[in-house]
Amino acid sequence: MTTGKRYVVPGIPDHLFDRGEVPLSKQEIRCLTLSKLRLKEGQAVLDVGAGSGGLTCEMALLMPGGHIYAVERDRKAAELVRANCEKFGAHNVTVLEESASGALTGRELPRELDRIVVGGSGGELEQIIGRGFELLVPGGIMVINCILLETLQEALQLLEKSGFKEIGFIQASIARSREMGGKRALQPLNPVFIISATRPEPARSWDSSQNN
Amino acid sequence: MTTGKRYVVPGIPDHLFDRGEVPLSKQEIRCLTLSKLRLKEGQAVLDVGAGSGGLTCEMALLMPGGHIYAVERDRKAAELVRANCEKFGAHNVTVLEESASGALTGRELPRELDRIVVGGSGGELEQIIGRGFELLVPGGIMVINCILLETLQEALQLLEKSGFKEIGFIQASIARSREMGGKRALQPLNPVFIISATRPEPARSWDSSQNN
Amino acid sequence: MTTGKRYVVPGIPDHLFDRGEVPLSKQEIRCLTLSKLRLKEGQAVLDVGAGSGGLTCEMALLMPGGHIYAVERDRKAAELVRANCEKFGAHNVTVLEESASGALTGRELPRELDRIVVGGSGGELEQIIGRGFELLVPGGIMVINCILLETLQEALQLLEKSGFKEIGFIQASIARSREMGGKRALQPLNPVFIISATRPEPARSWDSSQNN
Amino acid sequence: MTTGKRYVVPGIPDHLFDRGEVPLSKQEIRCLTLSKLRLKEGQAVLDVGAGSGGLTCEMALLMPGGHIYAVERDRKAAELVRANCEKFGAHNVTVLEESASGALTGRELPRELDRIVVGGSGGELEQIIGRGFELLVPGGIMVINCILLETLQEALQLLEKSGFKEIGFIQASIARSREMGGKRALQPLNPVFIISATRPEPARSWDSSQNN
Repeated sequence: MTTGKRYVVPGIPDHLFDRGEVPLSKQEIRCLTLSKLRLKEGQAVLDVGAGSGGLTCEMALLMPGGHIYAVERDRKAAELVRANCEKFGAHNVTVLEESASGALTGRELPRELDRIVVGGSGGELEQIIGRGFELLVPGGIMVINCILLETLQEALQLLEKSGFKEIGFIQASIARSREMGGKRALQPLNPVFIISATRPEPARSWDSSQNN
Repeated sequence: MTTGKRYVVPGIPDHLFDRGEVPLSKQEIRCLTLSKLRLKEGQAVLDVGAGSGGLTCEMALLMPGGHIYAVERDRKAAELVRANCEKFGAHNVTVLEESASGALTGRELPRELDRIVVGGSGGELEQIIGRGFELLVPGGIMVINCILLETLQEALQLLEKSGFKEIGFIQASIARSREMGGKRALQPLNPVFIISATRPEPARSWDSSQNN
Repeated sequence: MTTGKRYVVPGIPDHLFDRGEVPLSKQEIRCLTLSKLRLKEGQAVLDVGAGSGGLTCEMALLMPGGHIYAVERDRKAAELVRANCEKFGAHNVTVLEESASGALTGRELPRELDRIVVGGSGGELEQIIGRGFELLVPGGIMVINCILLETLQEALQLLEKSGFKEIGFIQASIARSREMGGKRALQPLNPVFIISATRPEPARSWDSSQNN
Repeated sequence: MTTGKRYVVPGIPDHLFDRGEVPLSKQEIRCLTLSKLRLKEGQAVLDVGAGSGGLTCEMALLMPGGHIYAVERDRKAAELVRANCEKFGAHNVTVLEESASGALTGRELPRELDRIVVGGSGGELEQIIGRGFELLVPGGIMVINCILLETLQEALQLLEKSGFKEIGFIQASIARSREMGGKRALQPLNPVFIISATRPEPARSWDSSQNN
């Protein structure tokens, strides 16, 4: 009997989320993003640009002993985050309805974060990465999703400059099967770049490959 | 402090597995596969064609209250599955060193399975899908990974014929960043088809999309 | 001075074609298709399922000494083929407004064809491939575009059964840059399978790899 | 009879080129590149970073009345360009065995170029784009292939700064069929970015999209 048991993997189907006009990261992209985030039970996670709350809900449900700080400055989107958290029963979420820079320098975040995931940077990538580095614990991971080539480039440069290590990314090109007259074609999703980087642990700073 | 906490998402880096010559599904493919499998705590899962044990280990660690039956007929591969389970501390795994058809009709599997994941079919796709349907609980999910176009086609036809519903697939084309002289190119992984299908619930057809 | 000189490569921009509701193969797909067709000056080419006439026009302009037989059973589409040929000044085209099977057994085709390109098969793939083999000169090439997995599979099987050799295909996944607020994202086109096969030259039948 | 007729489309199979250790652009990439170059009969084309001469040979054969200036500073590669031109009977080629910046400011290029194609920039992208703009006729087209994200970004910025218009790019992700035990898998080629841009025509800005 599996009824009532909770899921142990991400992958909530897209159509289960309330959405409106607000962007929702696709199921496959959420899964890849969270796998790169290497999320552990009990962590404090900052979710910047939460959109419809897709990643927020997935993380909150997978990590009932942790806490998600979901930053979303758009009022309608922030309401969707709350609505979707309610719908899925995710109670370990604090929605911060303000800009990323406001949240990162405000008093509502804990003094240390284990993970930061950036779904949308709202033109504040420099502050997010710079201040994010300070807030992350050593060994903490930042994952940034983007579709713009310029954002990819800028993020990679800022991550290096800020002291992050193990910087890498994937380009995820997913096509879904689509039925056409009983047969199947492929429907491509928009390709997404998923960048990941780690704040190095101080004790190891002398042994890793230095990039400057 | 996050030390000692367990991961709540799949995504063990490839290089942490013992491998030898045996195929290992790539990190990104494992994540997408498990997300389509919609794995829940406490489930009984059959893993057909376990290879190096990549999926086996991920599932066992994410679902400590569940059990994985890993079928792998190749002796060297079966030993790798055991070695990797040992390495990652995955104890809720039974390795069945035999063919898929042997395992599916033998006495070591439980009478009901919640999930079946097929990483390699060894030419026995028809038996795996046909017998798998019988062993799956209503609402149970089968996920099949393949790289051959012929296997994709055959699997889709067999899944339909056997009574599965919600049959679909994705093609995952992942490219990883690769450093070249301090700059970054894209290194494509082999594209993989990830098929998913559900054994329908006879009595619950009026109540779809329940999410807890 | 380059004015008035003709193009020596395919690649007419999509927006220059008259289109209506009729499908038009995308610029990049037309180029890849024609490159697999290995078109030579002066050839007789059958274009099955001409759609809006994209491939027809490209071939006619690149090969002024050759001739294109464009089969299109849909009246509106056939009119578009004619309109686009007129627009681009392609006069070496005969539009056959009938089914593929009708055209292949009718009296309007020459007794020998150098190339056959199939943009749409209208459910007549078996006849197109079977009869096409007979009409092709030894060394003649057939190229088939498809987006359905089932058509890919069926075409590959029929090509083998009919005696074609050097059967292969590519999957073309093209993404175009798209401006978003002065920055650039990627817009994926639908992935297309481009199959190519050659009618073997009799003198060589004893030396190539036989597939049955 | 088609024997002896010349090809009217690009697409020389990779294995027909002499190669050594020098990079050769893949058949599909050559075709897409040339289609974006919109090559016309009789043009003067600069080919920067000719590598093994893949693009050089294709262009020379498609455009017997034109001329290719193939710049390649590596001695071994330059020899391969010559060897491949010889092999394919391409005589309308001048190989410039020097750096791009040397060739662009030297006396061997004509005073006006119709097209510039960049297969490798050797760290001289700024000079190639800046000086290339000056050498191109109004309406002339530059196409740049790259695999590095940094080069893509830099090229886009330099093209805009230099006055180019109609700047765009595609990402070409091609997978080729690969036989495995009589069945077929997909083998991905490295994804390539193909950038194109036009030197605007000062007097013709009111008359765009003329096609002959």
